[in-house]
Amino acid sequence: MPSNPEAAVTEALQYFEDLTPGRTFEGGREVMDAERIKAFAREFDPQPFHTDEEAAKESFFGELVASGWHTAAVTMRLMVQAMPIAGGSIGAGIDEFRWPRPVPAGEVLSVRMTILEARPMRSKPGQGLVRTRVETLNRAGEAVQSMVCTTVVPMRGGGI
Amino acid sequence: MPSNPEAAVTEALQYFEDLTPGRTFEGGREVMDAERIKAFAREFDPQPFHTDEEAAKESFFGELVASGWHTAAVTMRLMVQAMPIAGGSIGAGIDEFRWPRPVPAGEVLSVRMTILEARPMRSKPGQGLVRTRVETLNRAGEAVQSMVCTTVVPMRGGGI
Repeated sequence: MPSNPEAAVTEALQYFEDLTPGRTFEGGREVMDAERIKAFAREFDPQPFHTDEEAAKESFFGELVASGWHTAAVTMRLMVQAMPIAGGSIGAGIDEFRWPRPVPAGEVLSVRMTILEARPMRSKPGQGLVRTRVETLNRAGEAVQSMVCTTVVPMRGGGI
Repeated sequence: MPSNPEAAVTEALQYFEDLTPGRTFEGGREVMDAERIKAFAREFDPQPFHTDEEAAKESFFGELVASGWHTAAVTMRLMVQAMPIAGGSIGAGIDEFRWPRPVPAGEVLSVRMTILEARPMRSKPGQGLVRTRVETLNRAGEAVQSMVCTTVVPMRGGGI
């Protein structure tokens, strides 16, 4: 449920012209199941605080927490769902990528996106670069991940 | 196989004192299998150029390519293997995260890490912050992903 009634929840493909600075998008709901946390970590981030409840108790975090890369991957799906971009989301880069709070098993994540800047690409007519602050929120509405994504977005009729 | 004979390949746990600026670590080998690319994308980044060979031909990329988040997750495992940090790799943040080249199915990835800066944390005695440039390389030795990671690392006997 969007906490901000002005935030868009849309299934419409978004073009450069739609992504005006200040506009926000919110949505998604992903339960971070303990078994999935451990399976992701066994494949990609095999550290005890991500793979084993007992070992996690002795760790920095004191409990099983999701790999930051698992949170990042889940965030990508929530982004694609909440702000579908025409031609697909082509990431040009990410800055200020932070994980300010851990994600324990059972947490429920959603995403909030705020358009920061949108400018046409001089080198590629018909396309623009859009900078978006993407925050991944826990049930309490606190950010567990934050990043600024720069994305290539086609203009209407511009193609990509 | 490290391209730089000076690069460390180690299974020894690394402490703050070991991670001196200029030191490099290399290693890893991950084949980016088409089926795993598509399965990861179906779960986390369901866009046609990541989930379907035929649709990918019509896309920006012209062929099936891995989600950047899949490359990022694989990179994490290669990092844990090539530069195991005592107490676990606690990410404080990432900057300058870029995907300069796509990762097509069948590509083989490895990782190269270069210590940029290491400084003690004033607020937490016994721990330091280490900034590392992490490059994910394809078979040609070209970077497909690059980022600067800031990590909390314990000093010897410092605990975390």
